[in-house]
Amino acid sequence: MIYLDNAATTKPSATAFDHAKVYALEKFYNPSALYNEGYALQSELKKARSALLCKVADETSFEFIFTSCGTESDNQAIFSFAKRGNAVTTAGEHSAVAAAFQELKTRGVAESRFAPLDKDGKVNIEKLLALVDDKTSFVSVMHVNNEIGAINDINKIAKLVKAKNPRVIFHSDGVQAYGKIPFRLAKEVDLYSVSAHKIGGLKGVGGLIKRKSLVLPPYLIGGGQESGRRSGTENVFGIKHFEYAAEEKFSSLKVDYERLTTYRENLWESLDKEVYTRLSTEDGTPYILSVSGKGLRGEVLLHMANDKGLIVGTGSACSSNAKNRYSKVILACGYDEKTADGVLRLSFSPQTTAEEIERAAEILNEVGRDLARRMK
Amino acid sequence: MIYLDNAATTKPSATAFDHAKVYALEKFYNPSALYNEGYALQSELKKARSALLCKVADETSFEFIFTSCGTESDNQAIFSFAKRGNAVTTAGEHSAVAAAFQELKTRGVAESRFAPLDKDGKVNIEKLLALVDDKTSFVSVMHVNNEIGAINDINKIAKLVKAKNPRVIFHSDGVQAYGKIPFRLAKEVDLYSVSAHKIGGLKGVGGLIKRKSLVLPPYLIGGGQESGRRSGTENVFGIKHFEYAAEEKFSSLKVDYERLTTYRENLWESLDKEVYTRLSTEDGTPYILSVSGKGLRGEVLLHMANDKGLIVGTGSACSSNAKNRYSKVILACGYDEKTADGVLRLSFSPQTTAEEIERAAEILNEVGRDLARRMK
Repeated sequence: MIYLDNAATTKPSATAFDHAKVYALEKFYNPSALYNEGYALQSELKKARSALLCKVADETSFEFIFTSCGTESDNQAIFSFAKRGNAVTTAGEHSAVAAAFQELKTRGVAESRFAPLDKDGKVNIEKLLALVDDKTSFVSVMHVNNEIGAINDINKIAKLVKAKNPRVIFHSDGVQAYGKIPFRLAKEVDLYSVSAHKIGGLKGVGGLIKRKSLVLPPYLIGGGQESGRRSGTENVFGIKHFEYAAEEKFSSLKVDYERLTTYRENLWESLDKEVYTRLSTEDGTPYILSVSGKGLRGEVLLHMANDKGLIVGTGSACSSNAKNRYSKVILACGYDEKTADGVLRLSFSPQTTAEEIERAAEILNEVGRDLARRMK
Repeated sequence: MIYLDNAATTKPSATAFDHAKVYALEKFYNPSALYNEGYALQSELKKARSALLCKVADETSFEFIFTSCGTESDNQAIFSFAKRGNAVTTAGEHSAVAAAFQELKTRGVAESRFAPLDKDGKVNIEKLLALVDDKTSFVSVMHVNNEIGAINDINKIAKLVKAKNPRVIFHSDGVQAYGKIPFRLAKEVDLYSVSAHKIGGLKGVGGLIKRKSLVLPPYLIGGGQESGRRSGTENVFGIKHFEYAAEEKFSSLKVDYERLTTYRENLWESLDKEVYTRLSTEDGTPYILSVSGKGLRGEVLLHMANDKGLIVGTGSACSSNAKNRYSKVILACGYDEKTADGVLRLSFSPQTTAEEIERAAEILNEVGRDLARRMK
C-alpha cells in the first residue's frame, strides 16, 4: 500500500517508539509526584519542551506547553483571547480554528471576521488587514494550509497586524508547518499550535508555543500541571516520543524539503493533464499536491485508487465528519463546485520514495481515465 | 522499588501495550479518513467504546466518549452544564472538579456550593441535599475519593438529588472507581468521568460516559470527531490500550477487590499505632489506605521511605502543583492541620504482592519511628 495521505496523519517513528517505550512501561510515574522518580520525569518533560521549542523559536522569548492535540491548542488560544470586540481569521483555516470562530459568534463573545483567500490558497493580506481595527482582540492565520498547501508568511502578517493594532494577540495554526518547512517565529507571533502525529509522533500529543510574557489562561483546569496552563496528568510517553520523532524530522528538514519538492513536481509531471488540474502552486509546501479530477468525484477516485493499493485524501480528513460535499477552503480559493468535487490531496512524508511517486501517478492516471470514460 | 502510589498513576499493562502496538506503528491511519484503512479504525474505536462502557453501564441507555484525560472529562461535564443558577459539589473533590467549580464562581456563570464531608471522607448526604434547590442546574459528587478512599453511593445520591429537582444534571468523577470497585450506573447518573492511567492504561486517555438522551456540547471544537462531542484526531493506540488494559482489570475486579481489602487491613495491622493514625475507614476502597504520622510531616516520611526503596504518596499527586501544605480534603474531613501535615497515602494495584505489603510496613515503621525520635 502506497500512503500519500500524510497531511491527515503520518506513520509514527518506530525508532522513537522503541526509545520512548521506557516512559510507558518502566518510568511510568506521575510527574507531579514528590519522590525522586516523579521529579526525574519533570526534568525529562523539560528536556522535551526545550528540544521541541528551540527548533522554531528563541527559548528566551517563547515557551512550550503540552496539550492533547492541535485542536486543543487552537481552541485554547482562541477561547482564551478572542473575548471582546472582533476576532479575525481566514477562510482557509482547519476546522479546529474555523469551527471555534463560528462558536465565538454563537456565544456572542466576539464578532468573527473571515478574510478571503487568493486563488493560490494564501490569505489576501490587504483584505485581512482591512478587517483589523481598534476593536480587534485576536487574529489567527494558519501557517501552511492543510488542503492546498499554501504557505502564509505569518511573521510578516503578524508584524503588519500589530502595526495596525499593537494590542492584538496573534495566533497561527502551525500543524502542517512545524517540522516540515524551515522557519523561526518572529516576536510578533504570540501563539503557535503544533501537533505530534503530523511529523511521525503519536496521536494524542500537541503543543502550544507562546510568547513568554503573555499570560495564558488554562483551558483545562485542575491539578495545575504545565505551570497552571494545562491541567491533566502529563502524557510523558507520548511527549518523549514527540521529542524523539521531532529530532529525526528536524535533522533532515531541509533535505526532505528539497527532495519532496522534486517528488511533488515529478508527480505532477507524470499526471495526465487531460484528467487532472493542479490546485497547489509551486511556492506551497512540498508536502502537499492538491489536484482536481475534471468533472470527476474525488471520493470515487479515492476509493478506486484505494482498491489498487494507493491511499490518498480528499481535502481534510477532519472535515469528513462534517459531511460537506464541497470543501469550503477550495471554494474559498475561488474554484467552482465542480472543481471542488474532484479534489484529491496527495501528501508526502520523508519516507515517500521515488518509486512510490511513479507508481502513484500510474494508478491516478488509470483510475482517472477509467472514471472519465465511464462518466461519458 | 515497592510502588504504593497507584492512586497517582499505575504501571501500564505491558501485555496490552504489545497487543495495541499495531495501532501505533502499522494501523496508524486517521480514523476520519474515507478509505478502507480509516473505516477499519472507526470500527476498532467502536469496539473499544462498547467494551469500556458495558463494564459499568447499560449500552442501551449510555454511551462512551473518548477524551484526553479525567480532567478534560470533568471540565467538559462541568462547563457544559453548570451554566445558570447554582451548581453543587462536595468538599472532597479532585482538583479537576474543585478548581473548575472555583472557575464558575470567577466567571460568574453559576453560584458554586460545596457540601461538607463526614469524618470518613464521604459527602454528608443531608447537607448536600440541603444545598440543592429549584435553581440548581448541576451536581457533581465523586465516586471514590482519591485521597482518603471513601466511597460515595452515587446512584443513591443521584436519585435523591433528582427527587428534589428532576432538572439537575448529575455528574460523578469516577476516576478512582472505574475498574476498581464493583458497580453499575443507575439511570439517574447523567455523566461519569473515567481515566485510563489509573487502571493500567496509558496517560493521555480518558472517557466521559453519558446518558444517551443527554445532549452534550463539545468542549474541544473542530473536526467533529466523537460524533461532534470531542474534536481532535482520535488517539487510537491509547484507546485500544485502554480497552485491553480495562479487559484485564475488570476480569479480576472482584478477586482483586477482596485480596486488596486483606492487604490493606494487613498493612494497617502491621503499622506501629504509636506512630500512625488511620484515616481511611474499612468501608472505603481497598485500593487506598490513608494514614497520618502523628506530629510528623508526610512529605519528610515520603522522602525517607523513598530512600529505603518504598514509593508512597501524600494525598493527591495533582495537588502538589498547588503548593498547599495541607490537603483541603483531609481538613474537610474534620482533621486538624497537624494530622493533615502527616498524611501518607498508600495505594495499591493488582500487582501489589503480600511481600511488598510486609516490607512496606517495616519501612514505614522504621522511618516513622526514626523521624519521631529526631523530632523529640
